[in-house]
Amino acid sequence: MNHLRENGIVHRDIKPGNIMRLVGDEGQSIYKLTDFGAARELDDDEKFVSVYGTEEYLHPDMYERAVLRKPQQKAFGVTVDLWSIGVTLYHAATGSLPFVPFGGPRRNKEIMYRITTEKPAGAISGAQKQENGPLEWSYSLPITCQLSMGLQSQLVPILANILEVEPAKCWGFDQFFAETSDILQRVVVHVFSLSQAVLHHVYVHTHTTVSVFLEAVYKQTSVAPQHQEYLFEGHLCVLEPNFSAQHIAHTTASSPLTLLNMASDGPKGLVFRDPALDVPKFVPKMDLQADYSTAKCVLGAGHQALRLARALLAGQEVMLRGLYWFVEMLQATCRRTLEVTRMALLFLSSNLSSERFSSETGIPELEELRKTLELRIKLRTLVGVLSRCSHNITKTQMSLSTLSCELVKSRDQVHEDRSIHQIQCCVDKMHLIYKQFKKSRMRPGLGYNEEQIHKLDKVNFSHLAKRLLQVFQEECAQKYQASLVTYSKQLRTVHETRNHLRLVGCSVAACNTEAQAAQESLSKTLDLLSHQLLQDRAKGTQTSLPTTAAHLSPLPKDLIIHMQELCEGMKLLACDLQDNNRIIERLSRDPLSSDV
Amino acid sequence: MNHLRENGIVHRDIKPGNIMRLVGDEGQSIYKLTDFGAARELDDDEKFVSVYGTEEYLHPDMYERAVLRKPQQKAFGVTVDLWSIGVTLYHAATGSLPFVPFGGPRRNKEIMYRITTEKPAGAISGAQKQENGPLEWSYSLPITCQLSMGLQSQLVPILANILEVEPAKCWGFDQFFAETSDILQRVVVHVFSLSQAVLHHVYVHTHTTVSVFLEAVYKQTSVAPQHQEYLFEGHLCVLEPNFSAQHIAHTTASSPLTLLNMASDGPKGLVFRDPALDVPKFVPKMDLQADYSTAKCVLGAGHQALRLARALLAGQEVMLRGLYWFVEMLQATCRRTLEVTRMALLFLSSNLSSERFSSETGIPELEELRKTLELRIKLRTLVGVLSRCSHNITKTQMSLSTLSCELVKSRDQVHEDRSIHQIQCCVDKMHLIYKQFKKSRMRPGLGYNEEQIHKLDKVNFSHLAKRLLQVFQEECAQKYQASLVTYSKQLRTVHETRNHLRLVGCSVAACNTEAQAAQESLSKTLDLLSHQLLQDRAKGTQTSLPTTAAHLSPLPKDLIIHMQELCEGMKLLACDLQDNNRIIERLSRDPLSSDV
Repeated sequence: MNHLRENGIVHRDIKPGNIMRLVGDEGQSIYKLTDFGAARELDDDEKFVSVYGTEEYLHPDMYERAVLRKPQQKAFGVTVDLWSIGVTLYHAATGSLPFVPFGGPRRNKEIMYRITTEKPAGAISGAQKQENGPLEWSYSLPITCQLSMGLQSQLVPILANILEVEPAKCWGFDQFFAETSDILQRVVVHVFSLSQAVLHHVYVHTHTTVSVFLEAVYKQTSVAPQHQEYLFEGHLCVLEPNFSAQHIAHTTASSPLTLLNMASDGPKGLVFRDPALDVPKFVPKMDLQADYSTAKCVLGAGHQALRLARALLAGQEVMLRGLYWFVEMLQATCRRTLEVTRMALLFLSSNLSSERFSSETGIPELEELRKTLELRIKLRTLVGVLSRCSHNITKTQMSLSTLSCELVKSRDQVHEDRSIHQIQCCVDKMHLIYKQFKKSRMRPGLGYNEEQIHKLDKVNFSHLAKRLLQVFQEECAQKYQASLVTYSKQLRTVHETRNHLRLVGCSVAACNTEAQAAQESLSKTLDLLSHQLLQDRAKGTQTSLPTTAAHLSPLPKDLIIHMQELCEGMKLLACDLQDNNRIIERLSRDPLSSDV
Repeated sequence: MNHLRENGIVHRDIKPGNIMRLVGDEGQSIYKLTDFGAARELDDDEKFVSVYGTEEYLHPDMYERAVLRKPQQKAFGVTVDLWSIGVTLYHAATGSLPFVPFGGPRRNKEIMYRITTEKPAGAISGAQKQENGPLEWSYSLPITCQLSMGLQSQLVPILANILEVEPAKCWGFDQFFAETSDILQRVVVHVFSLSQAVLHHVYVHTHTTVSVFLEAVYKQTSVAPQHQEYLFEGHLCVLEPNFSAQHIAHTTASSPLTLLNMASDGPKGLVFRDPALDVPKFVPKMDLQADYSTAKCVLGAGHQALRLARALLAGQEVMLRGLYWFVEMLQATCRRTLEVTRMALLFLSSNLSSERFSSETGIPELEELRKTLELRIKLRTLVGVLSRCSHNITKTQMSLSTLSCELVKSRDQVHEDRSIHQIQCCVDKMHLIYKQFKKSRMRPGLGYNEEQIHKLDKVNFSHLAKRLLQVFQEECAQKYQASLVTYSKQLRTVHETRNHLRLVGCSVAACNTEAQAAQESLSKTLDLLSHQLLQDRAKGTQTSLPTTAAHLSPLPKDLIIHMQELCEGMKLLACDLQDNNRIIERLSRDPLSSDV
């Protein structure tokens, strides 16, 4: 089209039927525009008056004169091609036409004209659902459209702006080319939102920064950029907003970036239209053409069911794997926090174990001494808090392990699922009958035997279709919904566990800071005390040498008893502490906490 | 077969052509034995004398009489079926017959007989590669066999024992059924050996223990059970030897258990036969039948190339992902060790920062004081060692990040590879020509135009085949070998890093233990000192109350100067320590060490 515009040619009959597909050397599709029978030279600002084209794809102005045969003096510009491109794109993207009066576009041409001309700005399709009923507008592509929501959000504005009859609002070719080229220059990043259980396709330019990508994810998930956390292949993947978007790893649908954060809307999973709704019934009488058409429709629905079944199963797999990774991540957090806690406990206990020479027996009015005592009490309290934290984390580890086991079991169930094979098998068999019907419809009539076989095929075909839809309903759709419910519960647990672990982590950190400060003070106080007392002694040796003899004199008896009591008390405390240490060590040796 | 044996029936003409494949409701293959024209009732201990069967699959005894027409009086038992099953299994598993004289089995029947009867015990195939050449035996399945090595190792003993002409050595049906049922009851566990870059299929019973699985892995990888470490979906997966094998996660070829340990043999990757070796040339003259046969052969090689190309690419993906996970695992180890080191440093510094009141000025002959001094020096040394460790780990983190980036890039290259699409496209086009050749060969002759088209097709077919093989060689095989070399280097780096991290981890742990012990002693000594000095003072107040006034007297001038000097020295030390702390903090805030 770009080439045509550059050479000032208007095609005037753009439609899917005039686009040929060529398979390239790498199996890729190459689309070629053909049938230049209606083409003529026409510059951007020129007009023409003759009418050409195919009515479904015709610009409303030309439709008015060519189809409705109204006498009007309008001349047409190059934008008639743009309108046809719009209808063609819509048709290719959805499998159906955008503007459909009741009974089809060729049945009610006045309504067809009304739909195209009365369409509100922004709407991309309009339909009359009932005979003489009102016109209904749609501003988005239908649920059956197989394009990702990410691509749809790029395509819809283009469609809205080229399917626009008002010349002032309608885009020109330049803008159309600019916007479509923009899409083609983007790459897809697959983002699986764990909390929504939805796979998003995010279209980004590689030449922008990561922050643009984060914004795009925000639009699709409502998770603010600064809160977005990603896993890639099971490990945390930090995306620096200022980096180039090229730094984002290459993703696929089965290996997406996994978004961890809670989105506001909860798991809704894959939304789809039940293929059973699109399954017509065979007419009872023998009608080769009608049977063929019905079989084609049913087979289409069968293929759609197969596609959905695959997507639902793949969705479950990504869901379960994402959750498994999340759990493993929390397990790693547990191990790390536990190790730090254990470390802190060891350091603290090595300081507290010296308490058997408690200073309590000293002179209580000495402030340093009182302080020492207070600090030691505080440290002991902190040891208690840390022990509880460590115990708490161990319990969390246990429950995470249980959850992990559950997930592995669910995963095994998904792997053992045979429904896709069953549906595939039905579709294959249906396809064989459909091919036979396709052959038969060209023939003038069937012989008796052939007719009997045809009737049997019809019955078999219906049975197969029924079985297929039943398998889809019971083995795919219902199982998926059930797994979504379980998943939702497990996800909530995991998020709660994470918040809990964060709190525990914070209190461990706070404890440690406090413990360090307390220990520092204790150490300083002890040092100060020693220093002061040493000074005392130094002076003592200078001023009252005779008193040194007193050093060697035995202690008063009551002081000894008092100290022995204290020593016993301290021994008990030390025992308690050793018990704590042993518990901590046992926990860290626990097979569940086996470490990376 | 089991059913036939239970009912005392001998089939006498088992061969692939008499086995029909039925597609089940889930698309699974159901094989049915047919053609009971040669069957008769025969119990295990009965014999028969009439000869039946197809010569390639015939038991040597029957072959001798039926094909070589030697007068012999041998009677045949039910084991003739077992021999035919063996040949059939071999044919199905490899696509070729096990016993092949030069020129084929039907060309040299004497040699054929010699091969089957002279075959040494344990051999499963024999061939004469040259006219009148020697017989060559093979004790394993050929490289072109598409069964996994794991399944081959299960199947080969069965083949060796039923393709056995000596009745004493040959298995009976009971043992055959027992051994084949045993295979059917096993499940496949996919194990990717990271160091060999080979995917192993390990066949285990679910009712055994994990230790049996570990032994089976040992046989295929030479990694002793107690050294085996596994990753599953990117996270360490601990397999308790005493647990039931049911606890092993469900694996697939793309989601295997990843074995981390160094195997003795290094990365050899996927071993395959170059498909170019199996590509025949067209005869120049027009020969529809010959052209068809050649096209069939070439197309077969094309399919083989496509299969290999897929396997090579998938192999690279698993390799790179496994390595990426390994690197991420080491990063987690880095983070954990770093956090512990940092923790220890904080605790130690909180103890050492009180040193401004150094006890050096005290009475040197006081032992506790000397000890305190020594302990402090020791602790300061340990702080130095820990700081170096932490610095070391940070450097390791950097190099791991670089490696991780390299891996992501390689992964992107694998994803961007188009060679499979190119090969697929060639195969598709070749298939169309082949189908035409298949139709043509049935016709008596071609018209002039058809002949010209046929000639053109031959040329095109040859071009396509050449292109396909070129793409395979240059884009698949060579790239795979190159990636294997890079991989091998990276793997070595990762293993070295791991060993290095282990050493660093050990020294951190040793430092911490030492530091805790030193701190404990220090704390005790200080306590003891304070206690002793307090006692002093207590006595001082009792015995020499007048000296208390001396406490308030100014210190001697030289002591003050001495202390000021010391204080300065301590300040410098404290600054150094703070610098250390700041470095540690900065490292821990480094984006590369961003944490789970």
